[in-house]
Amino acid sequence: MRKFLTMVAAFAAMTASAQFGAPRVNPTVPSVVAEVEDFKPATTNQEGHQFPMVNSQRMVRAQISAPKATFVGLDIDGKIYEMTKDENGLWTGTSAPQDEGFHYYQLNIDGASVPDPGSRYYYGASRWGSGIDVPAADEAIYTVKNVPQGSISEVYYWSTVQQKMRHGYIYLPNEYYTNPTKKFPVLYLQHGMGENETGWSAQGKTGIIMDNLIAEGKAVPFIIFMDNGLDTRRPGDPSPEEVRRQFAGQRPPQGGGRPQGGRPGGFGNFFEAFQQILLTDIIPMVEKNYRVIADTEHRAMAGLSMGGMQTHGITLANPTTFAYVGMFSGGTFSVDELKEAADFKKTNKVLFMSAGSRETRMAEGDGSVMKAAENLKALGINAHGYVSPGTAHEWQTWRRSLHEFAQLIFK
Amino acid sequence: MRKFLTMVAAFAAMTASAQFGAPRVNPTVPSVVAEVEDFKPATTNQEGHQFPMVNSQRMVRAQISAPKATFVGLDIDGKIYEMTKDENGLWTGTSAPQDEGFHYYQLNIDGASVPDPGSRYYYGASRWGSGIDVPAADEAIYTVKNVPQGSISEVYYWSTVQQKMRHGYIYLPNEYYTNPTKKFPVLYLQHGMGENETGWSAQGKTGIIMDNLIAEGKAVPFIIFMDNGLDTRRPGDPSPEEVRRQFAGQRPPQGGGRPQGGRPGGFGNFFEAFQQILLTDIIPMVEKNYRVIADTEHRAMAGLSMGGMQTHGITLANPTTFAYVGMFSGGTFSVDELKEAADFKKTNKVLFMSAGSRETRMAEGDGSVMKAAENLKALGINAHGYVSPGTAHEWQTWRRSLHEFAQLIFK
Repeated sequence: MRKFLTMVAAFAAMTASAQFGAPRVNPTVPSVVAEVEDFKPATTNQEGHQFPMVNSQRMVRAQISAPKATFVGLDIDGKIYEMTKDENGLWTGTSAPQDEGFHYYQLNIDGASVPDPGSRYYYGASRWGSGIDVPAADEAIYTVKNVPQGSISEVYYWSTVQQKMRHGYIYLPNEYYTNPTKKFPVLYLQHGMGENETGWSAQGKTGIIMDNLIAEGKAVPFIIFMDNGLDTRRPGDPSPEEVRRQFAGQRPPQGGGRPQGGRPGGFGNFFEAFQQILLTDIIPMVEKNYRVIADTEHRAMAGLSMGGMQTHGITLANPTTFAYVGMFSGGTFSVDELKEAADFKKTNKVLFMSAGSRETRMAEGDGSVMKAAENLKALGINAHGYVSPGTAHEWQTWRRSLHEFAQLIFK
Repeated sequence: MRKFLTMVAAFAAMTASAQFGAPRVNPTVPSVVAEVEDFKPATTNQEGHQFPMVNSQRMVRAQISAPKATFVGLDIDGKIYEMTKDENGLWTGTSAPQDEGFHYYQLNIDGASVPDPGSRYYYGASRWGSGIDVPAADEAIYTVKNVPQGSISEVYYWSTVQQKMRHGYIYLPNEYYTNPTKKFPVLYLQHGMGENETGWSAQGKTGIIMDNLIAEGKAVPFIIFMDNGLDTRRPGDPSPEEVRRQFAGQRPPQGGGRPQGGRPGGFGNFFEAFQQILLTDIIPMVEKNYRVIADTEHRAMAGLSMGGMQTHGITLANPTTFAYVGMFSGGTFSVDELKEAADFKKTNKVLFMSAGSRETRMAEGDGSVMKAAENLKALGINAHGYVSPGTAHEWQTWRRSLHEFAQLIFK
C-alpha cells in the first residue's frame, strides 16, 4: 500500500503540466509565427466537415456558427485562443503550432465548455469530447493499409472482485482467424489518468499499428487486452463522493478546467483494486476464452502514464507473472527496486521505458528513461529506453512507444 | 434504376416527420403535464455526470454552465426547449415527455448547436452528437447480463468497387469462440439515413440483444455484419458537392436543422452502389474470412428505414441470394411486386416488416405492415408484421424489430 501511495504522489508531480492546468485565455495567436494558409480538414473530423483544420505549421483552426454569442474560444493544450466573429455569426480562430499527433480540445461558447460539432469524440481528460490529429512525419505507422487485418472487439465479462459486469477491448491478430489452432501471447495494455478502455484503440490506433507491424514482419502476432484501470471500485470501497471529500483540497486526478466526472475508488486504493481485478478476473477470463499461451513467457504488461505506473507496481508485486514490461511516460524502474529482485530479474525478458522528448524530467538527465535503462542493463536486465522526438505527455509519444515495444516482445 | 428513384421518393415522404424538421423554439414546457421530481441521470451519460436526467414521465432535463450566454435551449425531438439561468450561470431546462428508448438531441448556446458535454455521443441525424436513452418497460432485452458474450469487432477490408479500404462491424456469437469448427449463418444489417455503420451496435444494442436471445434459447447463434450504406461513392460517381447542386431545392437527405455533412453518392445512385459493394466486396469478404455457411438458406438481409428500403431493393433484384428479409420502418413489399416473383417466393423463408405504432402510415390501415403481411401470406409467403407499441421512427422501434426478427430466422 505504501508503494501505491508513493507512486500516486510521483504521478501527481509528473503530470503537473500545461495539459492538466486550468486553461489561460490567449487573446491573440502568438505573432512570432505567421500563419501559412494551407489549412486542410483534420483526419479526425466528422464526415464531410471542413473544420477544424490544420496547416503545415501544425496550427489548428476551428470554426463554429454562434450568431448570438459574445465570446467563442478554441481551448487546446491548456490555452484558450479567442476566436473572431464575421458578419454571419461565424466564429473562426487559430491556435499556436501543436505537437505532431493527437490532441484533446474543446470550444468555449460564452463560458460553456463544449465539444466542437466538427470533430469526432474521444475519451480523455476525464470526458468524451473533441480530439484532433495533427499530421506527423511517421503517421504511416498508424495509417490503415491493405494488409491482413486483425480485429478489436468489446468484451463483457463478470468481475468476481467487483460483483458486476465489466468490459474491455481485445485485439486479435489476423492469424487468430486464419490459423484456428494456433495459440498466442497476450499483452495487457493500460490507459492513463482521465482516460478509459477505449483510449488505446481509438486515439492509440493500436489495431492499425499492430496490423502494420505484423504485416511487415517486425512484430510477432500477439493478442492485446485493454481494460479500464480507474473503474475499480469494489463492494466496501469508498464512493466517489467519499473519495472526493477525503481528497478535498488536494489536486484532483482529473485536473482543472475539465468536466469533473465521478471517479470510483480513491487515490489510496484504485491501483491495488486494479491489480486484484487484473489477476483475478481479467487474465483468467482471457486465458479461458481465447487461444492463449497461458504462461509467464507469453504474458506482457504495459501502460501509459498512470497505466505505466500500474504496470510498475503490479509487475514488481507479481514478479513471476509477466516476462515483458513496458512503461510509457510512466516513470522508470530504479536500480534500488530491482537489484535484490531475484524473481523479477530471472523472469523479465524485456523492460521498456519511454517518454516524450518534451517530458524533460523523464527524457533528460539522471532521471531519464535512457539513463534508467543504462543503469538496469548493468544489473543484467534487458532494459530499453526510448525517447519520442518532439512530443510531450500525449498520444503521439504512446503510439510510438507501442510501435517500439511491440517489436521487442515475445521474440 | 427507376425502382431506386421511386423508393427514394417514397422514403422522402415517409420520413417527413418532426424528427427531420427544423426545430421550433418552445418557450415553455407544455403545461398540461406537471413535472414529477423523480429525475435520475440517464444511462447514456458520461461517467459521473448527473445531467441530462430523465423522470418517470420520460421528460428530459438538461443542465449546462454558460455564465455569459443569453440563450440556452434543449433541442430534442424537433423542438427547442428554452432553458433558464440561475445566479451562478447554470442553465437548466426540461422537455416534454419523450418516447421510450433512444433519442438524439443537442444544446443550443447563443445560436450554436453543440453536443451536451454530459452525454455520450452517437452517430445519427448526420452527425456525431448527444444521445439519451429513456427508460423502457422492455429494456431488459437490451441490458447486459452475465450470459455467454459474443463480440462486436471493427473490420477493415479492401473494396474493389470503391478502390479504397472500407470498414464495418461484425457480431460473432459466443459459440463462434467456444465451438471452433462450427459454421454460422449471417445477417447483413443496415442503418438508416443520416446514420452509419456504428448505429446498430451503439444505439441499436445489437450485441446485447443477440447475446440475451441466444442465452434464452430464443434465437439460434448467427453472425451479423453491419456496414455503411451511404459511404458508397465509386470512382466516377458525382462528388458530394455535385450531388448537392443536382438536388438543390429538393429536401436534403440530412434534414434541416442538423449539421450538413457531405454525402457521397447521390439520391440516384447510392442505393445501386451499395448493392454492388455488398455483393462484390462485403459478402465475399465475410464468407472468406469467417466461418460462415455460405449459401442462400443461411444468408439474411435487414435494415431500418433507408436500410430497409435498400434491403427491399437488393433482395428483389437478387431474389436467390437471401432467404430471410427484414424491413424495419422501411415500408412494405407489395403483392404486385411479389405475385410474379417466382424466384423470390421460392427462396424466401421469412419476410418481416415492422414499424412503430406512431408511424401511422406504416402502422395503421391499408398501407400498414400488418396488412401487407396478411396480403403476402395469401401469396404463400411466410410474411410477418410487427408494430412496436408507443414508438415512432426511432431506435426503440428498431431494437424491438431486431429482437423479433432474430427469433424468426435461420430456424
